[in-house]
Amino acid sequence: MNLVLLEEADFTAAPKRGRLDDGVERTVVLTGRRLLHLRTVHRAELGRSLRVGLIDGRVGVGIVEAIDAERAQLRVALTEPPPPKLELTLLLSLPRPKTLRRVLQMAATLGIPHLVLMNSWRVDKSYWKSPQLHPAALREQLLLGLEQGGDTVVPNVELQRLLVPFLRDELEGVARGERLIAHPTATSPCPRHVGRPITLALGPEGGFLAEEIDLFVRHGFAPVSLGARLLRVEQAVPTLVGRLT
Amino acid sequence: MNLVLLEEADFTAAPKRGRLDDGVERTVVLTGRRLLHLRTVHRAELGRSLRVGLIDGRVGVGIVEAIDAERAQLRVALTEPPPPKLELTLLLSLPRPKTLRRVLQMAATLGIPHLVLMNSWRVDKSYWKSPQLHPAALREQLLLGLEQGGDTVVPNVELQRLLVPFLRDELEGVARGERLIAHPTATSPCPRHVGRPITLALGPEGGFLAEEIDLFVRHGFAPVSLGARLLRVEQAVPTLVGRLT
Repeated sequence: MNLVLLEEADFTAAPKRGRLDDGVERTVVLTGRRLLHLRTVHRAELGRSLRVGLIDGRVGVGIVEAIDAERAQLRVALTEPPPPKLELTLLLSLPRPKTLRRVLQMAATLGIPHLVLMNSWRVDKSYWKSPQLHPAALREQLLLGLEQGGDTVVPNVELQRLLVPFLRDELEGVARGERLIAHPTATSPCPRHVGRPITLALGPEGGFLAEEIDLFVRHGFAPVSLGARLLRVEQAVPTLVGRLT
Repeated sequence: MNLVLLEEADFTAAPKRGRLDDGVERTVVLTGRRLLHLRTVHRAELGRSLRVGLIDGRVGVGIVEAIDAERAQLRVALTEPPPPKLELTLLLSLPRPKTLRRVLQMAATLGIPHLVLMNSWRVDKSYWKSPQLHPAALREQLLLGLEQGGDTVVPNVELQRLLVPFLRDELEGVARGERLIAHPTATSPCPRHVGRPITLALGPEGGFLAEEIDLFVRHGFAPVSLGARLLRVEQAVPTLVGRLT
């Protein structure tokens, strides 16, 4: 938790006008997971200064004014914008639930603003029934990732349970800039430092079918490869981010 | 397991002369973890063709000649070199054991040939007592990573429990090419596609101390940053690999 994420409900008083992240000093009270983390990991004491940020708002500094086993009270002032996002839309074949949790956190930490979890042939049907796909569960992982990366803006996560209708009917509203599909046996190497928005499709463990690659190609995606090594999803995403951006 | 890694002991007969990976057809027998994986994940049946490779040797194809609950017998011919390694030496502050397992696998999958696990101020002393540091435990994770990435050559992993003597006495024998140290608040952005060997130092969760950064700088390391976002070790390594290589 490199940033303590604040919700509106944490503030002891709502401003009469304007926003909670207007730079004015305000008081917040933390309990539960964040309190536990402050006490056990940060070992936060009176007067300790911490990075804080309002969910979907600005970041700043919080000073611990009181802390015990029940609650922590911080005096906060939110003055700075959160770090910029990547200009990257990630279309990812739904991974297994355990991997999904890590990928959601990672996407938020890396600054991926828009993640589409989509179906493809080699996605196990059972993954679509995972409780990890409930909105509250998705949000929980995204917030953990934001706290790691020091960001406040919750990425947009979209579920697309049917690949063909998604590509046919909704892709144009989602895809920005250069369209790439990661495919280990593609003949073109993955480009470097593209310098404009990217929409990147990434397959499941086991890869896309050739027919699926063809389908993406018909929708304007260029197959690109990182080389012969087959990476796990949670390795491929940051490797591609490091290479493309 | 995108590649079934073979040990010498798996072969039913040793060649009278030459190597096991000389391209000649030979018979191997698999039991234990690899058999279980073949049966439950690959659902391998008679006649199935699989990628195989000899540890530290060549890769090729294996055909399943027999498989049951006790053993699998494959006819293999090892004809091709494994994929090339990255020209990267990674000096990594020892992470917590759970992260270490993932980082070892990832290093092997990505093709990092040389990993130095080193001490630094914010490395918890208890991590050095982890059973994950036993040579057999290190090797187990490295083999899993090689099987994922389709490689056979076991990375060299070195433990350096004392940072200052390591840098003073042993660095010159280890460090190749450009020396970089990843540091989120460095003013220089991390370079892209360096195109020559790199020795990259990466700190613990919580980062290096300023004094440690100074020490690396005195040893010729340039501090470079990926930006304001603080990545977990298992996110930073592939992001840096994608960016630098």
